[in-house]
Amino acid sequence: MTQSGGRMRKSLVLVLLAVAIAAGGDIRSAGLQDPPPNVVIIFTDDQGYGDLGSYGHPTIRTPHLDRMAAEGQRWTSFYVADSVCTPSRAALLTGRLPVRSGMAGDTRRVLFPDSAGGLPASEITIARMLKARGYATTAIGKWHLGHLPQYLPTSHGFDSYYGVPYSNDMDATGTELPAGEPRRRIMNPRIDYWNVPLMRNGDILERPADQTTLTSRYTDEAIAFVKGNAERPFFLYLAHSMPHVPLFRSQEFEGRSARGLYGDVVEELDWHTGRLLDTLRELKLERRTLVVFTSDNGPWAVYDEQGGSAGPLRGAKAGSFEGGMRVPAIFWWPGTIQSAVVTGIGSTLDLLPTIAALAGVDLPPGRNLDGHDLGPVLRGSAPSPRQTMFFYRARALHAVRHGSFKAHFITRPDYGNEPPVEHEPPLLYNLDEDPSEKFNVAGRHPEVVAAIQQIAAEHRKSIEPVPSQLDARIPTGAAR
Amino acid sequence: MTQSGGRMRKSLVLVLLAVAIAAGGDIRSAGLQDPPPNVVIIFTDDQGYGDLGSYGHPTIRTPHLDRMAAEGQRWTSFYVADSVCTPSRAALLTGRLPVRSGMAGDTRRVLFPDSAGGLPASEITIARMLKARGYATTAIGKWHLGHLPQYLPTSHGFDSYYGVPYSNDMDATGTELPAGEPRRRIMNPRIDYWNVPLMRNGDILERPADQTTLTSRYTDEAIAFVKGNAERPFFLYLAHSMPHVPLFRSQEFEGRSARGLYGDVVEELDWHTGRLLDTLRELKLERRTLVVFTSDNGPWAVYDEQGGSAGPLRGAKAGSFEGGMRVPAIFWWPGTIQSAVVTGIGSTLDLLPTIAALAGVDLPPGRNLDGHDLGPVLRGSAPSPRQTMFFYRARALHAVRHGSFKAHFITRPDYGNEPPVEHEPPLLYNLDEDPSEKFNVAGRHPEVVAAIQQIAAEHRKSIEPVPSQLDARIPTGAAR
Repeated sequence: MTQSGGRMRKSLVLVLLAVAIAAGGDIRSAGLQDPPPNVVIIFTDDQGYGDLGSYGHPTIRTPHLDRMAAEGQRWTSFYVADSVCTPSRAALLTGRLPVRSGMAGDTRRVLFPDSAGGLPASEITIARMLKARGYATTAIGKWHLGHLPQYLPTSHGFDSYYGVPYSNDMDATGTELPAGEPRRRIMNPRIDYWNVPLMRNGDILERPADQTTLTSRYTDEAIAFVKGNAERPFFLYLAHSMPHVPLFRSQEFEGRSARGLYGDVVEELDWHTGRLLDTLRELKLERRTLVVFTSDNGPWAVYDEQGGSAGPLRGAKAGSFEGGMRVPAIFWWPGTIQSAVVTGIGSTLDLLPTIAALAGVDLPPGRNLDGHDLGPVLRGSAPSPRQTMFFYRARALHAVRHGSFKAHFITRPDYGNEPPVEHEPPLLYNLDEDPSEKFNVAGRHPEVVAAIQQIAAEHRKSIEPVPSQLDARIPTGAAR
Repeated sequence: MTQSGGRMRKSLVLVLLAVAIAAGGDIRSAGLQDPPPNVVIIFTDDQGYGDLGSYGHPTIRTPHLDRMAAEGQRWTSFYVADSVCTPSRAALLTGRLPVRSGMAGDTRRVLFPDSAGGLPASEITIARMLKARGYATTAIGKWHLGHLPQYLPTSHGFDSYYGVPYSNDMDATGTELPAGEPRRRIMNPRIDYWNVPLMRNGDILERPADQTTLTSRYTDEAIAFVKGNAERPFFLYLAHSMPHVPLFRSQEFEGRSARGLYGDVVEELDWHTGRLLDTLRELKLERRTLVVFTSDNGPWAVYDEQGGSAGPLRGAKAGSFEGGMRVPAIFWWPGTIQSAVVTGIGSTLDLLPTIAALAGVDLPPGRNLDGHDLGPVLRGSAPSPRQTMFFYRARALHAVRHGSFKAHFITRPDYGNEPPVEHEPPLLYNLDEDPSEKFNVAGRHPEVVAAIQQIAAEHRKSIEPVPSQLDARIPTGAAR
């Protein structure tokens, strides 16, 4: 009886496994892999859609990222949830639109060194979610979700933190500079023009940070973390400070790129990404590590050649046209990811649910989440489950993409003081046919306009008002 | 003595060979390969810089061309010599700027069905040049260098010809159509809206040509030619009629692409290019055949979604900004071409001298040629010898690129009746840093402006006036 029962149980397991495999699932998606896979997210700052060789840039050379794309998946319709740093980063780490977490503000769009707010303790980051499964977690690089102790990575599920707590152009030194001087400094940067701190956990290591070696030092830290945690599941969030202006690169990369300073910086990022992937290969971790490379928003076009390129896309950082929010995105996991160019829609909002499924952990309870599990797309067994993308600017819904079509209810120049323009009917573009958003086809497709208006109305009902974290300031004179 | 002499001669050959190899040459470039390599030029019509997956298009899928690029060289600064069909084609086949051959005109920019002119008999095409070396030669597809018998391919060194003699939107049927109807017909094409002939040699096979099967039938002809000439050197000039509007594709490709009709057409071109490369592989000719894929000019932007995309480049067909004249260009020759992305400058003007060197034939004598031998770049042994590119619009020199910089002396909208605008000093763009021609840096680099002005002045001296072939018309009532 015992024997027979044992045999029966074995048979049952085999049958269930066969059913699971036949259903397009696999061991990993059923959360049965133990240990669960490692996760690495490499997140660059203000890198444009068109700023990699494999995304069509004519002169920037990115052989390591291009190889990563060829071995993995290159996504061509991948979006961040906002077109500036703070809300985009909050969305990636929480799987929630910034308007739900308070990380979108109407007077300020990002946090500053005098900001009193940050990512609320009630939010659950990917790091905190993975702690429940025994992951080692670290955040390296730019944080920008609150620099006060209660908001730092170590308060949000990360075991450790090494990096610059906000943008590298903040904390500018020199007061009452003559007109034009701040811009001149950005375009001809010196380290001492900005007093940004380099931190380890809650402590300041260096101020001003030597920005020329940030890309290299972040990567060194990342490699040390990977080596130190090779025997257990880990989550590495590597958020580079570059290529956000002011642009800095190490001596070795000076003049390396025909593209000039911006190209040097991207080619250095590429080279260090190659180092990190090589480390995974050397440690034989590459077949149990998902690596995602993406950028936090479009290129900062107001800085001319020192901003990046959105390639064929319209618009740039801070705006809700494609150039502001569609970003390069490469997924790599040899042996698991089906090599492909994926044209279906994806978002940084999808990373949390995708990773939850891979790690076999529960989604954060009691809250609206805005993501989808992209696992089946990564494994090549299904098209993207995401059909809809919401384009917010601060707390206002400016546009909605559904399927091929994107409707703009409100447009506004990426920068400047011009007021928003409301469109009734909305502007409608077919992004599959017209990725450059040139040809308004609202008149030809009233039924699509109506359907997207309905989707927007349903969506708005799901938004509950929460206080903005971006507008509160530390009282003058208070200790930071 | 004989023996010793024989040994001495052998030694001499070895020494000379060693010197040749040391000098960066190889057996092929010394013209010593026998038989010389086959040459295939695939030339599409109005395909934009950004309209291939490997050049960054988000939704057009071109796996065969992308594979060709990965195995060979993808050039990112490759130019045609004019931004419209007739002069661009004349330049490719003769290695000469159209202003030298009479293939540039001030009242008409291309040939029409009532044109009396064509490529002069005094011009020597790649085909005629290769005849001297025993090549079999054929022209398949769109000719557009004169449809009268004395101008057809068979009068210019091609053993045979199969194709449409001019653009597929010419010979429109229906006279005195109401305003807007010609455009409506382009956008909603039916075969009988155009009475274009499909010819074999000098005879009309079909009129109007069934354009839905042109891509497929051209490729069938090309494959038959390759199979029929597998034992001897051949030159195949395959100039597709697509994706020039009106856009047609076969039933099999209807709705295939997310990009819509234009994408369907490009994906069909890609698929048939794959068939042709597969034929070369099956016949084991791939290691002795150079295949070049490129386009005759930028996308025809006035046709909205039915025009292509210049990717990150400014401008389109008919203009002298980059989008009009920088085109996709892929070189493929397994075993000989060093796989790479080439950012150096190249041009269709370089094909004739490159092919002359490969075939070991003399360049056409007694004339100014405008090309360089790109062989060393293809073999990976040297950077591109081309430093300068001249941008003509009809017979006027509008811009000059030298190294990274391009100076625009004259600009003009791609289409429309607005007059040209002269710039003094010229607009100056750094194309390596700013491929989108956004930031005029003339004020920062007066020495570059002066150097390019000098280059332009020297170049102008080399142009001898010849009659334009594009302006003469067949007298009304005369037989065609």
